[in-house]
Amino acid sequence: MRKLLAEFFGTYWLVFGGCGSALFAAGIPDLGIGFAGVSLAFGLTVLTMAYAVGHISGGHFNPAVTLGLWAGGRFEAKDILPYIISQCVGAIAAAGTLFFILSGKDGFAIDNTKAGAFASNGFGAFSPQGYSMSAAFTAEFVLTLFFLLIILGATDKFANGKFAGVAIGLGLTLIHLISIPITNTSVNPARSLSQAVFTGGEPLSQVWLFWAAPILGAIVAGFVYKNLLQDKS
Amino acid sequence: MRKLLAEFFGTYWLVFGGCGSALFAAGIPDLGIGFAGVSLAFGLTVLTMAYAVGHISGGHFNPAVTLGLWAGGRFEAKDILPYIISQCVGAIAAAGTLFFILSGKDGFAIDNTKAGAFASNGFGAFSPQGYSMSAAFTAEFVLTLFFLLIILGATDKFANGKFAGVAIGLGLTLIHLISIPITNTSVNPARSLSQAVFTGGEPLSQVWLFWAAPILGAIVAGFVYKNLLQDKS
Amino acid sequence: MRKLLAEFFGTYWLVFGGCGSALFAAGIPDLGIGFAGVSLAFGLTVLTMAYAVGHISGGHFNPAVTLGLWAGGRFEAKDILPYIISQCVGAIAAAGTLFFILSGKDGFAIDNTKAGAFASNGFGAFSPQGYSMSAAFTAEFVLTLFFLLIILGATDKFANGKFAGVAIGLGLTLIHLISIPITNTSVNPARSLSQAVFTGGEPLSQVWLFWAAPILGAIVAGFVYKNLLQDKS
Amino acid sequence: MRKLLAEFFGTYWLVFGGCGSALFAAGIPDLGIGFAGVSLAFGLTVLTMAYAVGHISGGHFNPAVTLGLWAGGRFEAKDILPYIISQCVGAIAAAGTLFFILSGKDGFAIDNTKAGAFASNGFGAFSPQGYSMSAAFTAEFVLTLFFLLIILGATDKFANGKFAGVAIGLGLTLIHLISIPITNTSVNPARSLSQAVFTGGEPLSQVWLFWAAPILGAIVAGFVYKNLLQDKS
Repeated sequence: MRKLLAEFFGTYWLVFGGCGSALFAAGIPDLGIGFAGVSLAFGLTVLTMAYAVGHISGGHFNPAVTLGLWAGGRFEAKDILPYIISQCVGAIAAAGTLFFILSGKDGFAIDNTKAGAFASNGFGAFSPQGYSMSAAFTAEFVLTLFFLLIILGATDKFANGKFAGVAIGLGLTLIHLISIPITNTSVNPARSLSQAVFTGGEPLSQVWLFWAAPILGAIVAGFVYKNLLQDKS
Repeated sequence: MRKLLAEFFGTYWLVFGGCGSALFAAGIPDLGIGFAGVSLAFGLTVLTMAYAVGHISGGHFNPAVTLGLWAGGRFEAKDILPYIISQCVGAIAAAGTLFFILSGKDGFAIDNTKAGAFASNGFGAFSPQGYSMSAAFTAEFVLTLFFLLIILGATDKFANGKFAGVAIGLGLTLIHLISIPITNTSVNPARSLSQAVFTGGEPLSQVWLFWAAPILGAIVAGFVYKNLLQDKS
Repeated sequence: MRKLLAEFFGTYWLVFGGCGSALFAAGIPDLGIGFAGVSLAFGLTVLTMAYAVGHISGGHFNPAVTLGLWAGGRFEAKDILPYIISQCVGAIAAAGTLFFILSGKDGFAIDNTKAGAFASNGFGAFSPQGYSMSAAFTAEFVLTLFFLLIILGATDKFANGKFAGVAIGLGLTLIHLISIPITNTSVNPARSLSQAVFTGGEPLSQVWLFWAAPILGAIVAGFVYKNLLQDKS
Repeated sequence: MRKLLAEFFGTYWLVFGGCGSALFAAGIPDLGIGFAGVSLAFGLTVLTMAYAVGHISGGHFNPAVTLGLWAGGRFEAKDILPYIISQCVGAIAAAGTLFFILSGKDGFAIDNTKAGAFASNGFGAFSPQGYSMSAAFTAEFVLTLFFLLIILGATDKFANGKFAGVAIGLGLTLIHLISIPITNTSVNPARSLSQAVFTGGEPLSQVWLFWAAPILGAIVAGFVYKNLLQDKS
């Protein structure tokens, strides 16, 4: 139960901090934090919670991570579903809090005909810079694959494991630095779902890609790491 | 006495570095550091002082942190008041130094009818982007709650404690990346008080919210961590 | 074989993340990550992979690093060629993936008559800010020399070696903060080759400098560190 | 001799990286790194060299640091002069290299009637934002005082000393985030001297302040830390 609560808080913080920084602070003229600031925010949500509650739940905060760790032989199948449910509930609760705070500003409304509405993910006409579905799928697949290689490698028993929280958190920052213009960056199905629930419309119709591509990339990474990179000794 | 001096220096540095970077460097055309640079500055004041004097006083530099640690069972009640007084004195001394340096530039004056004057916190008409009082209260409450979860978690005896200074400092950076546009970011009653003392006027009238919301969030976090997340073994 | 695969993945990630962030995200109006974001991205590719697969291959991801470590007495001659081939193959594979993703956006084409086309390196008319060949050579030589001093020093048996991944990764960030305007920053022959293969034309004709200067700087650093700085006791 | 060479390389890197990033990359329209990028660069020169050669020389790279450590009882008087000479020679050699690289760009010339020419420090008309001499002196004094408190505290035997390089390097980043607009940030007499030697004129006439204020701040910090903060047990 402590584990599920830790996953709830961690994923809440990921969505509140990452999507929140995008919604509140990215686009303010002259002073706004831009894509680089949002990238840093997403990464720091994971870095901070990895050190805060990683010792409780392992610090996944992401259904693709949970499934990739299972594929890599580091997580038990029976715990997958409870973890993913906690993550999705935490993400949706955070999106609700963001919605409430934004409502406290005059003229707030979600326009779900625009790319990136309410920090949602998308492709084609809903990609921030108009990338196609196959480009978006490739990017999400490759990025999640490497995110899991970083996680599996940095927490390997032969690795310098105390730095795993730094490497994984800043790895998520890096992933956002690359790909916000492509898909608004998911690599995390719970994060994508939570924003789409509030936008509805086309962003919600596109949410399947942000479950399929990250999960596929994560599972491939799990098998690659376990079979080709891990020291068996 | 060494502890109180460490809290004085740490909180002085937090206000001098955080508010100072905002006042001196945020808004310079083309080259200015923007909200992202100010966010980094606030976080680095805590990161640096946590490693410098954390071994002396614990490195709170914030009345809400002191009260949250007490609520979490990590700090004795008898030391609360001396800590908070040292923090407020340090913060006000830093604000005075900032005032003196700014006076060395032609045309300096504080216009306390504008949001964010002298790096003060505010809501409604005094929110940088016009967020309502309830939005501001919610943001400060949630952000301080998570700040304390990070602090309590990262310094837990089961955690990877040597990284606590990194996680806590960069956690404060993250909090600023999210919320400068909402309230100019407090999560620290001493920081809010120190700037408001120099502005007077409406920012000073609003300072109550930046004591109430952060302290409430911190105390809730203390109870949540102690009762629901902490490993009792 | 595990080592060569680790070098393949690490160099793939360096090019995909570093050059990818430049191509996808650097120049977007108002929100783009700029040279500072690209600098951070390059550094984080190395920081993340150093902690993820450094325990497998040593984490070079760069032919100049491999040769500098050999010159410094830390790497065996017989492994040089396989490492460099793996690095080049990984880099080119990443450049190919970037090409595929970019093709998913309307109007994509590489204009190899412009400085920095497809994130390629260059000097003279192909330097982002018009720096001469000798300025470019000097910059790449000095920067790679210091990059290797950082690597050799931070992994010295007398050093605080657990932080080597942080120091080396952020060292690459620093190198990019200095020199993107000069050469678009190489210090890595595999990275330069991989982009030039796709541009052809003048950037490919200039690629010799981005093998010669970094390798020379790296080898000088190896000899300097081994003979003048290393504690022989 | 190894120690003096380490100080030479470290201070060379501080000036080459910090002042170099300012000269090459800060002001490029749209993509430039701005004051925040320069702040990061200065800090990373120290962070990288602290882990690379800190185990050889202690990693001062700054005459004020050397004198502050002496005042704090951590450095022997007989080594002060050789250290400071090595630092100044390294800084001037780096400034010479920067001058050579900049000469490889059409139209390069130093205009020593402008604030910040060749990354020089200054006050009054030579302050980037027109701060008076007393404001500049106060800022340099306070910032160097805190820089030394960070150094003395983070390397205290009771501190979490492995993180000292991170805290000290990022502390220098923080100092630049605050004060580039005030004096172009010195806190380091060798850095100030090295640029002024190439500008001559008024920036050279003002260099006295950038020896006096940092050294005074550093020595005060040494006495404060030793007598008021250090655990005598």
